[in-house]
Amino acid sequence: MADPIITLTTDFGTSDHLVGTMKGVILNANPAARIVDISHSLVPFDILDGALTIANAYKYFPPRTIHIVIVDPGVGTERRPILVSGEKQFFIAPDNGVLSMIYELESCTVRHITAEHYFLNPVSRTFHGRDIFAPTAAWLSKAFQTEAFGEVVTDFVHFTMPKAKSSGQAVKGIVLRVDAFGNLMTNLTAEDIPVDSLSDGVIKLTVNGKEVLRLGQTFASGNPGEPIAVLGSAGFLEIAVNRGSAARTLGAGRGAEVAIDIT
Amino acid sequence: MADPIITLTTDFGTSDHLVGTMKGVILNANPAARIVDISHSLVPFDILDGALTIANAYKYFPPRTIHIVIVDPGVGTERRPILVSGEKQFFIAPDNGVLSMIYELESCTVRHITAEHYFLNPVSRTFHGRDIFAPTAAWLSKAFQTEAFGEVVTDFVHFTMPKAKSSGQAVKGIVLRVDAFGNLMTNLTAEDIPVDSLSDGVIKLTVNGKEVLRLGQTFASGNPGEPIAVLGSAGFLEIAVNRGSAARTLGAGRGAEVAIDIT
Amino acid sequence: MADPIITLTTDFGTSDHLVGTMKGVILNANPAARIVDISHSLVPFDILDGALTIANAYKYFPPRTIHIVIVDPGVGTERRPILVSGEKQFFIAPDNGVLSMIYELESCTVRHITAEHYFLNPVSRTFHGRDIFAPTAAWLSKAFQTEAFGEVVTDFVHFTMPKAKSSGQAVKGIVLRVDAFGNLMTNLTAEDIPVDSLSDGVIKLTVNGKEVLRLGQTFASGNPGEPIAVLGSAGFLEIAVNRGSAARTLGAGRGAEVAIDIT
Repeated sequence: MADPIITLTTDFGTSDHLVGTMKGVILNANPAARIVDISHSLVPFDILDGALTIANAYKYFPPRTIHIVIVDPGVGTERRPILVSGEKQFFIAPDNGVLSMIYELESCTVRHITAEHYFLNPVSRTFHGRDIFAPTAAWLSKAFQTEAFGEVVTDFVHFTMPKAKSSGQAVKGIVLRVDAFGNLMTNLTAEDIPVDSLSDGVIKLTVNGKEVLRLGQTFASGNPGEPIAVLGSAGFLEIAVNRGSAARTLGAGRGAEVAIDIT
Repeated sequence: MADPIITLTTDFGTSDHLVGTMKGVILNANPAARIVDISHSLVPFDILDGALTIANAYKYFPPRTIHIVIVDPGVGTERRPILVSGEKQFFIAPDNGVLSMIYELESCTVRHITAEHYFLNPVSRTFHGRDIFAPTAAWLSKAFQTEAFGEVVTDFVHFTMPKAKSSGQAVKGIVLRVDAFGNLMTNLTAEDIPVDSLSDGVIKLTVNGKEVLRLGQTFASGNPGEPIAVLGSAGFLEIAVNRGSAARTLGAGRGAEVAIDIT
Repeated sequence: MADPIITLTTDFGTSDHLVGTMKGVILNANPAARIVDISHSLVPFDILDGALTIANAYKYFPPRTIHIVIVDPGVGTERRPILVSGEKQFFIAPDNGVLSMIYELESCTVRHITAEHYFLNPVSRTFHGRDIFAPTAAWLSKAFQTEAFGEVVTDFVHFTMPKAKSSGQAVKGIVLRVDAFGNLMTNLTAEDIPVDSLSDGVIKLTVNGKEVLRLGQTFASGNPGEPIAVLGSAGFLEIAVNRGSAARTLGAGRGAEVAIDIT
C-alpha cells in the first residue's frame, strides 16, 4: 500500500506558522501521510479562486487522495465543515461553495463533519485548518471510513461559476484569473470560438476594450508585445503575450470583460 | 518506525537554489527523511519573526521531529551553531536567540555543534544552512544521539520577547507581525483584556492612534471595513477586518503601538 | 531501496494549479516518488535563471535523483523535450539551453524524449510540464531505463554562460541574480580577484558605477549600510550589505555591470 496523500490548497500565504502548523497536526495524527502543497497563495477570501485551483488540479492525483481546501472568511461562524466523497477522491473544506466546481464535475456525497473526538480540542474560532480540517484529513487517511465523520447533508452551498453569455453578435465572458506569467485565463471555452477562427487563426476579441486579433496554437505564436488568444491546458481561452505579460500589455486583470465577435 | 521528520524555517526566500540545496544535503545523508517546509518567507534577518514562527508551529509536530530554524545575519562569525533538545523534539539553529521562545516554553538542553566530521567540508562562511545545519539534522535523524554533536553549553543567547506593559489606565503592547490577510498579531493576551470586554464584546483599543471598539469572536464578526479585535488561535489578540486587511485599514504594521484602555 | 526523488524547478509561481497538477501526475504514475520543490519562483521565461538555480542545487542531491527543470517560453513549438543522464543524476527539461551549466559540469548523455505512450494524451501545446515532463520523470523513477524514452541526440541547445572578461586594468562581469536578502551574485570568481585583496581585504570594485572597497569574509563584515564583496558559497563573488540589501543600497539588479580594478 502506498502512503496516503493529503494535499493543501489555501489562502494562508507562507510567511508565518499557519501552513506549518497544519502539516504538524497531520503528521502527528498520521506520520505516514504524504503532504503535497498545491497552493497557499490563493487570493485572500476568494472562494472562486479556490474553486478554480482545486478543480484544475485534483483530477491528476491518484485515487484516495484527500484534498484540504481552505478559503474560509466565515471561519468560526455557523458555516459547516464538510467532507466530500467524489468518485475516487476526497475533499475537506468549509461549506461555502469552494468545492462548487467539484460538484459540477463529479457525483459527490457531502457530509457535515461533526465527529468532535477527532478535532484538536478546544476548537478555536479562528483556525479550523489546524483544529478541524487537518485532523479530519489525517484520521480519514488511516482508514477512509467517511461515515465516521458525520451525516450526509444535501443542502450544501453550491454557487454557479460565472459562465460566458451570448449577447447579440458577441459572446461575453470575464477574466477568471491571472497566472504568474501574466496570462489571462477567461471563462470562454472552445465552444465559444467561431469554427472559422479555429481553422484560420483569425479571431476578433476585445479584452478591457482592447483588441486581440489572433488565435495562436502556443504561447510563442505571437510577435513581441502582441497579445494573442490561446486555448489553454485547462480548457479555457487564455490571452497571452509571447515572453511578456498580457495583464500588463492590456492593463487587464481579474474580472475584466472579454467579448468575442461571432459575426 | 515512521520516517524521521525534518522541518525548515528560514528567511531564504524561494527564488533561488538555497532551500533546494539544503533539501539535497539532507536527503543525501538520510534518504528516509521527510522534509517539511514551515516557511521560507520570514522577514530577512529578523530573529523575532523566526522565534515567533517556530514557537507557534513546533508543538503540533510529532515527538522526535527535528526543526531547522535559520535567521542568521551572523553566519560565518563567532556565533555558534546549536542543537537543542526540547522535551520531545529537537531544534537546530544559530545561537542568536532565534529559539528564545522555545526556551520559555520547554525545558531544554543546548549543545554547541562541533562534530565537524558531520559537516560538508570545507565549511563556507556564508551558507551554514548547507554546510552545518542540514547535515547535522540529517545525521541526527538517523540515530537521535545528541551527545555525538557537541558539548552542553549554558551561556546560549536568550532574548526576552517584547511584553505588554501596564501604563496608568492602559496596557500597552505592539504589533508583532502581519499575516497574509493583513491581520495584525499583537503581544497582548487574554489576560490583558478587561473581564467586561470578554463578556460584552466592547473594548477600547487604539492601534497606531486609531480606535478599535469591538472584541469579536470570529474574523467575520465585523461590519465591512470595521477593524475589530479577536483573540487569535496562537493566544494573542489580533486586529482584523472582515474580508479585508486591518494593516491597510489602520495603516499599521509591525512594531505599531497598541493600547487597551482598562479603566 | 529508498524512495525515488523527483525535484521541481520552474517559473510557474505558486498562485495557481500548475505546480499542484504536476505533482498529481507524478504521484499518480509513481506513488512512491518523493517530490522536492527547489523553486517555482524563477524569473519568468528566464533560461539563465533556471540554468543557475539547478546548477547550484543538483550536486547536493543523492545519486539517481531526477530533476525536472522548466523554463519554457517555447512550449508547444518545435523545441524538443529532453532527458539528460549526468554522471549520477537525471534531468528532464525543454531543449532550450536551461541545462547548459550541467553540460559544462558533467559528462552527459542527452536523449530526445519521444516515447509518447508515457505522455498524458492528448498532449496540450501549452502545458508540457503536466503532459510530458512530469509523466516522463515518474516513469523513469520506476526503472531508470533511459533508453526507453528516446534516442540520443548531440545537437542539443547549449548556450555559454556570460563570463567575466579582462579589459585593460579591469576585469568586467555582471550581476547574474539578486537573492532574497538583496545580495548581488556576480559572475566573477576567486580567480578574478587580485591576490593582495584576498589577503588584505582591500578591493577596488565598481557596481553600477558605485564603489565597493572591502572584501569581507562574511556577510556581517561590513559596517551598517556599507556594501562589501564576499566570496559566496556557490563560488561567485557577491556584493552584500550587513543586515541590509545591496540591491537597494547600490540601485543595482540583474545585468548590472561589475568591474574589479586589478592594477
